[in-house]
Amino acid sequence: MKNPFGQMVGFTVRSGRRGGGKASATLDVRPELLNPHGVVHGGVLFSIADTLMGAALYTTLAPGETCATIEIKIHFLQPVIKGKIRCRTRLVHRGSRIAVLESHISVGRLQVAQALGTFAIFAPRPAQVQSAGGAKRRRLAQ
Amino acid sequence: MKNPFGQMVGFTVRSGRRGGGKASATLDVRPELLNPHGVVHGGVLFSIADTLMGAALYTTLAPGETCATIEIKIHFLQPVIKGKIRCRTRLVHRGSRIAVLESHISVGRLQVAQALGTFAIFAPRPAQVQSAGGAKRRRLAQ
Amino acid sequence: MKNPFGQMVGFTVRSGRRGGGKASATLDVRPELLNPHGVVHGGVLFSIADTLMGAALYTTLAPGETCATIEIKIHFLQPVIKGKIRCRTRLVHRGSRIAVLESHISVGRLQVAQALGTFAIFAPRPAQVQSAGGAKRRRLAQ
Amino acid sequence: MKNPFGQMVGFTVRSGRRGGGKASATLDVRPELLNPHGVVHGGVLFSIADTLMGAALYTTLAPGETCATIEIKIHFLQPVIKGKIRCRTRLVHRGSRIAVLESHISVGRLQVAQALGTFAIFAPRPAQVQSAGGAKRRRLAQ
Repeated sequence: MKNPFGQMVGFTVRSGRRGGGKASATLDVRPELLNPHGVVHGGVLFSIADTLMGAALYTTLAPGETCATIEIKIHFLQPVIKGKIRCRTRLVHRGSRIAVLESHISVGRLQVAQALGTFAIFAPRPAQVQSAGGAKRRRLAQ
Repeated sequence: MKNPFGQMVGFTVRSGRRGGGKASATLDVRPELLNPHGVVHGGVLFSIADTLMGAALYTTLAPGETCATIEIKIHFLQPVIKGKIRCRTRLVHRGSRIAVLESHISVGRLQVAQALGTFAIFAPRPAQVQSAGGAKRRRLAQ
Repeated sequence: MKNPFGQMVGFTVRSGRRGGGKASATLDVRPELLNPHGVVHGGVLFSIADTLMGAALYTTLAPGETCATIEIKIHFLQPVIKGKIRCRTRLVHRGSRIAVLESHISVGRLQVAQALGTFAIFAPRPAQVQSAGGAKRRRLAQ
Repeated sequence: MKNPFGQMVGFTVRSGRRGGGKASATLDVRPELLNPHGVVHGGVLFSIADTLMGAALYTTLAPGETCATIEIKIHFLQPVIKGKIRCRTRLVHRGSRIAVLESHISVGRLQVAQALGTFAIFAPRPAQVQSAGGAKRRRLAQ
């Protein structure tokens, strides 16, 4: 899927095997990713963690199901000033409507952030099944 | 202060009055801020909330003090697809070493996200007081 | 509704008006609510916040709907060693399946804690509508 | 250390080896731990997670250092109605002033909750070093 903001940030996502509930990504630090203190902006690390949670959960979705972030908490453990950022995400819990995922972000062997989040899972809309017409924008809010 | 990632995302920060613990920002939705579902990426909203928490706390810092994000939780309440995003942030609690801040994000009259986060406050380094030279990178990690 | 753990902790809940999404509670500090540092245990404050979120959301539920806590983050701002604890909770967002609530806890005029949480809302079960018999335990997990 | 509220809830803490950053606890479900839905109150699980985070961090504190909870987020994954609750906690990150810890709570082989929290670490007070007398209440707030 096209991800304009993900492309602007510049990370590359690798989804794990179908049903595995895992995803990973890497991102090389660039000057435009820094905050006023000269360290990678927290929004960069959050963006990777959020995107990977969606990608990891997506490996477990049935045809027509979609998902959306409900909330994520992210902890910043160490400042990142250079190097290759790596994020690994895994599914902690998969209910029928709610999933919990966690992301670990590191640079080399140093863990720099950790996130724990909740996603909503939406069943396929009857309209999607019954008709190809009238596909209105899916309401992703809860 | 220069904020390369903030510039890339494109929001404009207004700090409140000195000591007031408030800050606000606006951002017009652009196509490159969208996620694969066609809604503004959560990382965009998080980036604004995080930056404003720092800006709001900064209005209360003494000369030489600095701050860094410890953790933030953000809730996504409604999908944002267009319009002008507005974020307002205020200080909830200011200790000597720890501060708690909250951000409310809305589009028009609709609240679309809410965040609650913790920041660390660092006292001025003795070296900064005693010497103008040798200013090494400040270690922002906790 | 009977709340055995709430009774053991000893707080008194007042639900707001039907549909208002508010609830409040008070609790007098007793020696058995303290932690090893001689301050009120974080679990006490969390228990009040969690219970009130349920009570506040309950004022908005339709007949047959139920709810359950998905996650809560609580910040401890000041230690509580004595006095009357007061918690006020309000609905931040009410979707059809997900709600977000916040609780402010204070002693006198001092805010001592703040919590922000997510609840799941469950539609009435068809069995509850169609039949009075066979009411099995509702599965509250997501 | 005496823990009045921990005793009232009834869990038993086992700290791991000195410096290991780990702790565990067990608790048998009793009727007075239930909420109005007949499941173990979220405050019970939170109390265990919070206490164990303190105990796990305590194994890494130097003489005279103390700690206090800044914030914890807990996710409830499954309702608990009976059985033996087991919690395992480990240190995720240990800075000089801030630590991050996570707790996993399960019943049998089923994970029922997960928590991620931040603690403050306080250096020994000069008064504690210089004098055995006059030990005033330690201010645990940040």
